[in-house]
Amino acid sequence: MKPLKLLDTGSFHVGGRTVAISGQTPVELKLTGTIDAFTLDPNGTYAIEGAYVQYMIPDPCEHSPVLLIHGGGMNGSVWETTPDGRPGWQRQLLEKGYPVYVIDMVERGRAGFCSLDTVWPGQPLMRSLESAWDTFRIGPASNDMQEVFPGQKFPVDFFEHSALAWSPRWLHTEKAAVAALSKAIERIGPTHVMVHSSGAVTAFETLAGMESNLALSLCLIEPAGLPEAKISPDIPVLSVWGDFVEHSVFWTDLYTQSEMVLAALDNRCETLSLNECGLPGHSHLLMQDTGNERVLDVILDRLMHVRDGIT
Amino acid sequence: MKPLKLLDTGSFHVGGRTVAISGQTPVELKLTGTIDAFTLDPNGTYAIEGAYVQYMIPDPCEHSPVLLIHGGGMNGSVWETTPDGRPGWQRQLLEKGYPVYVIDMVERGRAGFCSLDTVWPGQPLMRSLESAWDTFRIGPASNDMQEVFPGQKFPVDFFEHSALAWSPRWLHTEKAAVAALSKAIERIGPTHVMVHSSGAVTAFETLAGMESNLALSLCLIEPAGLPEAKISPDIPVLSVWGDFVEHSVFWTDLYTQSEMVLAALDNRCETLSLNECGLPGHSHLLMQDTGNERVLDVILDRLMHVRDGIT
Repeated sequence: MKPLKLLDTGSFHVGGRTVAISGQTPVELKLTGTIDAFTLDPNGTYAIEGAYVQYMIPDPCEHSPVLLIHGGGMNGSVWETTPDGRPGWQRQLLEKGYPVYVIDMVERGRAGFCSLDTVWPGQPLMRSLESAWDTFRIGPASNDMQEVFPGQKFPVDFFEHSALAWSPRWLHTEKAAVAALSKAIERIGPTHVMVHSSGAVTAFETLAGMESNLALSLCLIEPAGLPEAKISPDIPVLSVWGDFVEHSVFWTDLYTQSEMVLAALDNRCETLSLNECGLPGHSHLLMQDTGNERVLDVILDRLMHVRDGIT
Repeated sequence: MKPLKLLDTGSFHVGGRTVAISGQTPVELKLTGTIDAFTLDPNGTYAIEGAYVQYMIPDPCEHSPVLLIHGGGMNGSVWETTPDGRPGWQRQLLEKGYPVYVIDMVERGRAGFCSLDTVWPGQPLMRSLESAWDTFRIGPASNDMQEVFPGQKFPVDFFEHSALAWSPRWLHTEKAAVAALSKAIERIGPTHVMVHSSGAVTAFETLAGMESNLALSLCLIEPAGLPEAKISPDIPVLSVWGDFVEHSVFWTDLYTQSEMVLAALDNRCETLSLNECGLPGHSHLLMQDTGNERVLDVILDRLMHVRDGIT
C-alpha cells in the first residue's frame, strides 16, 4: 500500500429535523448494571433523519469530488476496505487524486435511525445470508449457498463475514433520505455521484428535485429500479452491470426497467455490461469484487474523465 | 489544517455470530416504489453483533495505537470533527503520530443492529435533547434548555445539530458488545484504550475477561459506572472528569461509584478533575468541547506518554 497524503479529512452530519413527542408515560430503566435505575421521560424533542458524510481530500487534489452512495441495507463502509481486506473504491479514488465523500444515508450506519414508533412505525427488515446469496448473485438461490456462479469475483470465502456490514432497512424513509441527500450534495458542491443498487432510486429522486444541478456525472452501479423522473440533461449517466443477471428474474426485470427510464431521458446515457468489456464474473457488489480496480478504471474512462475535461 | 500523511487507512468488521431463524411466515413487500412487490422469507441465517473499526496509521508513526471507544447512544463519529467543525481527538492523535482505531460498538453506527425481535426483543431507547441537556451537563435540567452553565465549553450553538449523531440503544446487548470489543482488541494488538461514558463499563468488562493484557493504558472519560471487575494490574488507569458534576445527582453518584471501584484495584490509578488542572467549563462530551486539544494534551502527559516510555 502506498502512503496516502490528505489535505483534509473529517466528517459531518447534515439535514434532518426535530420532532416533539408528548403524552407518553415515563418509564423506569437501568442503563447498565452499574447505573442505578432512573426514570426516563420519553416526552421531548428528538433530532432525526440526518445523514452522515465522511470526507477525505487527497494531496495532490487533481479532480472534482466523488460522492459514494451505498445501496439498500448497506452503509458507507461498503466503499472502504473489501471484506477480504483489499482497498475499496474510496481508497482507489483517493490515490487517483479524487476527493471522496462517503455518505451513510438516513437510517443507516452513523446517520442513526429513529426508534420512536409513533414517528417511524414498524420493524426494519434484515437480509438473511440465503436471500443475499441470491440477490447479490453469488450463486443460485435454490441450493442453500452451496453453489457459486462459475468465475464469481465476489470474495466468497468472506461472504458471511461481509454480512456484518449490512444494516436493517425501513421501507418508508425514502422522502427523508432524499431530503438529507439533497442537503449533503448542496454542502459538498459540484460532485460526481456514484450510487449502488436501490440507492439509485434515492439519488435519482434527489437530483430530479434539486433546484441547481450540482451533479457532474451520475454513475449507477446496478440500479435497483429508477423512478420516472427527469434529472438535468447536463448530467451524463453511466449504468454499470455485472454478470449473471440472466440467472435472476428479479434483476432481469430491474435491468429492463432501468433501461426504459434511461431511454426516456434527454441525457447522454450509456449502459455498460462488464462482461462485454472483458470483465466477466462480477456480482451485484462489484465494488467489493476481486478486480474492482479494473471496474473503476472503466468507469473513470467512460464517464468521469469525460466530464472532468480529462482525455 | 496541516496535511496528514497516512501509511494506511481502512476498516473492518469483527466478532459477531450467526443466528438461524425458522418457523416464520413469509411476507409480501415492496422495497421501493420502482421495484415490484416480492415475497420476503424471514427464515434463514443472519449475521449479527459484530463491531466496526476504522483505522488510520500516520506517517511518521511514532507511538503505539489508540483505540477510541464511544459512549452509550453514540457512535465512533464522536471522535471525529466536532459538531462545530473543529478537529476531534482522532485527528489530533494522528497529527501527534498515534495510529488511531475508532470503533462503532455492537448495535451502533456501521456495526449495524439486529431487528429480529425474537433475537433482540424490544425497542431501543432514544435520547431527547432535553434529557441530553441535563445528562451531558450543558445546563440545568429544569429550564427547558434556556440556561447554559457559566463558562460552558461545549459548542452550545451546535447542540441540536450534534444530536443527529446519536444512536438508539438497547439495554440487553452488553455481552455481545464485550465479545466484539474483545475480538477488536485482539486484532489491533497492544493498544492504548480511551473510552467515553458508559462505554467504560464495556471496556472494563472486556479487559477483565481477556486472557492476555493487550491494553497499554486505560483512559476513562467520565466513566458512567464501572463494574467490580479486576483488570490486569499492569494497566495504568486515568479517570478524567469535566465540570458541573456537583450540579447533577446522577453524575455525583457515578463519580463516587467509579472512585470506589478504582480504589479497590491494584492498578496505578489517577483521577483528574479538569477544573483542578486549570481547565474549567468542560461538559460530559469533553472531547468535542472548545479546548479539546488542551484536554488531550493533559491526558497524553499523565497517562499515555508514561506508558509509551516517553518523558
